[in-house]
Amino acid sequence: MTRYPVRMAVTLKPEVLDPAGQATLAVIKERGFGMVDELRIGKLVDFSVQARDPAEALEVAQRLGREFLANPVLERFDVWMEEDLRLGAGCDGE
Amino acid sequence: MTRYPVRMAVTLKPEVLDPAGQATLAVIKERGFGMVDELRIGKLVDFSVQARDPAEALEVAQRLGREFLANPVLERFDVWMEEDLRLGAGCDGE
Repeated sequence: MTRYPVRMAVTLKPEVLDPAGQATLAVIKERGFGMVDELRIGKLVDFSVQARDPAEALEVAQRLGREFLANPVLERFDVWMEEDLRLGAGCDGE
Repeated sequence: MTRYPVRMAVTLKPEVLDPAGQATLAVIKERGFGMVDELRIGKLVDFSVQARDPAEALEVAQRLGREFLANPVLERFDVWMEEDLRLGAGCDGE
């Protein structure tokens, strides 16, 4: 058994309004970020899954998204496995 | 000028406690997901940036993270540009 890191994005479906995102966008546009648009806020859930192989870990992650982490009426979810997580252009704000 | 889609992950630094993540993990472990661990909840901010090229869009996104979207004491942020966003194994819960 191996421990696989998984990242899940839970986002509002495109047809669902996002008042928090709209409020954030209005503020940042006022503060010099007029070039930013279409801002929407979602949730990110990072976790690890103990599994025999990546396919099993992915299956567990997708079941978790369907059953617990995403509201199927309002939200969708996407799952990334470890090998995809190295792509970010990171900054820890320091 | 082109409109570049950007995805930003805002996550708690590893040394910062995440009570919401701990509570979620406790519940899902009770409900048949004992193989899941190390669960932490973060924010996801999707937006577009009007810019001359991807490098300029990335620079705007990182400035936005530093100045507005992440709390530098508690959080870090990572930025992905459009070409990286095709990797997810998606599911919209339907």
